[in-house]
Amino acid sequence: MEPEKDIRITLIGAGTIGLSFAVFHLSHLPAPSHLAVYDTRANADQYIRDSLPKFFSKDSTSLSRSDVRIATSLHDAVSNADIIQESGPENLQIKQDLWAEVEKHASKDALLWSSTSGIPASQQAQKMQDKTRLLVVHPYNPPHIMPLLELVPSPSTSEAVIQRTQNFWRARNRVPIHIHQETTGFVANRLAFALLREAIHLVDVGVVSVAELDKIVETSMGPRWAVAGPFKSYHAGGGPAGLEGFFNNIGETVQGCWNDAGKVNVGDGWEDKVFAQAREVYGTVDVAERDRITRRLLDVLEEEKGEKTQSDGPSKS
Amino acid sequence: MEPEKDIRITLIGAGTIGLSFAVFHLSHLPAPSHLAVYDTRANADQYIRDSLPKFFSKDSTSLSRSDVRIATSLHDAVSNADIIQESGPENLQIKQDLWAEVEKHASKDALLWSSTSGIPASQQAQKMQDKTRLLVVHPYNPPHIMPLLELVPSPSTSEAVIQRTQNFWRARNRVPIHIHQETTGFVANRLAFALLREAIHLVDVGVVSVAELDKIVETSMGPRWAVAGPFKSYHAGGGPAGLEGFFNNIGETVQGCWNDAGKVNVGDGWEDKVFAQAREVYGTVDVAERDRITRRLLDVLEEEKGEKTQSDGPSKS
Repeated sequence: MEPEKDIRITLIGAGTIGLSFAVFHLSHLPAPSHLAVYDTRANADQYIRDSLPKFFSKDSTSLSRSDVRIATSLHDAVSNADIIQESGPENLQIKQDLWAEVEKHASKDALLWSSTSGIPASQQAQKMQDKTRLLVVHPYNPPHIMPLLELVPSPSTSEAVIQRTQNFWRARNRVPIHIHQETTGFVANRLAFALLREAIHLVDVGVVSVAELDKIVETSMGPRWAVAGPFKSYHAGGGPAGLEGFFNNIGETVQGCWNDAGKVNVGDGWEDKVFAQAREVYGTVDVAERDRITRRLLDVLEEEKGEKTQSDGPSKS
Repeated sequence: MEPEKDIRITLIGAGTIGLSFAVFHLSHLPAPSHLAVYDTRANADQYIRDSLPKFFSKDSTSLSRSDVRIATSLHDAVSNADIIQESGPENLQIKQDLWAEVEKHASKDALLWSSTSGIPASQQAQKMQDKTRLLVVHPYNPPHIMPLLELVPSPSTSEAVIQRTQNFWRARNRVPIHIHQETTGFVANRLAFALLREAIHLVDVGVVSVAELDKIVETSMGPRWAVAGPFKSYHAGGGPAGLEGFFNNIGETVQGCWNDAGKVNVGDGWEDKVFAQAREVYGTVDVAERDRITRRLLDVLEEEKGEKTQSDGPSKS
């Protein structure tokens, strides 16, 4: 890979995720011309130039967005790139063909990243000659705001590629987490969907409404887990005996909740009630407002992390 | 109930939860003498006066803690109280006997609250003459920091009692949520434990470590759900079609995660690995530091809520 200052990035696919990544990279590259975007839709050039500004908050960057390079062909898009990041349709065939084609034109040591939320790198790479360079780099939406990147390599991905990918994101104050197995849905979504399943159940049986359930999470787990994840929180909750103490104290209650947990499935019939409540209470969510407030919280957390790192000094705490 | 300014509160049980509630009330009462604490342990007076200051952050209140009234008997504790809040041992027999005894000495319209995380009000009230006044007011730990209170009435609890309880907490900028059924574990813990179960599974099978899993939650769901709960988030994620659109788009992935979800149970054998990792990575958690940062986030959210309420004006948005 080129020295940091000369990194060139190509994004393939200019949907919501692709454009959000574009905004992130524009805020971290020396010049907008170092970012190329390629999309196969008709009038991609005009579409991208129209859509990109909507992602920028007032304060996020002063780079001129009109200088983003819109690539005219896949060859043009990838031939000079150090990093090629695809956020295209969630379709295995399309991704397999894309990477086989990208491989023909890309430089030998370009990093190849997929934003997929579900198709493992091992499957995407099946038509490639060299499967060592491809891995999933799954963001938490929207990536220009949220710090997490799940790095999910295939068994063929090289250690060096994983390391270079981690270095890239860490240098930009993001949090890349190496997922050690290609598990269904990776990790963040599995966790969130487990909670969502129980949430749907509780609304379905009338214990709380959609609005009440959200309010509960916003005033308890949300802020708590923003500061200390579930294991750390329960480890603290167990007193001197830590997580073990927590389970000694209330393991029975935990198991009671697990035994009683809902087992709803997609299509079970809860949908009408839950969807209707969500529509009624939220209508159209002001996403820009949500992102602005989220950014304020993340700024606080970033600031605290910075102070902690400084005060920790060189020794390991 | 007396006018707000004259409210007198009695806390029964001075464990971690009881003392945290004491700190909260001290910050919201006109005089520390309006708070009485009763605990049956030996040397309760000295213990409470020693323990209480540890809960105060430097900035939280200027009230003199030494003026808290330490009650010398249950009769003395409850006879003048408008609100009697128990945070005693999680033991049905103890709570049933306590409320039967409290009922004899308390004023007829005193509110009776239990902080239990698991024993329903309907069971606690079984030896009472008048079951209409008792309900569960379950905090998210620690209550002097976290805004949520789960109000879980029994079928016998009167509407007026629920309403007065809601009014009390709302007037203090807290978020009381009425849980409509006495469900096992109430709601917040059920949700959190559903996610915890999947988290344990993923660590158990080696997909991520305890530290990696926490980092994932801290940089994704945590800050996101602090701003917008799961339903609101996925409703936004579904675009114009809302939550229904979200499930149309990725319902298959959601169901795939549900089908593949872990089914660990307490005592299954994952404990050694998970507990050891938690001990190794966290040792003793600096809870005061965690609470200080959590409070900063909550202050931001509170400020945003205040601004939103103002700008919304009198019309319903």
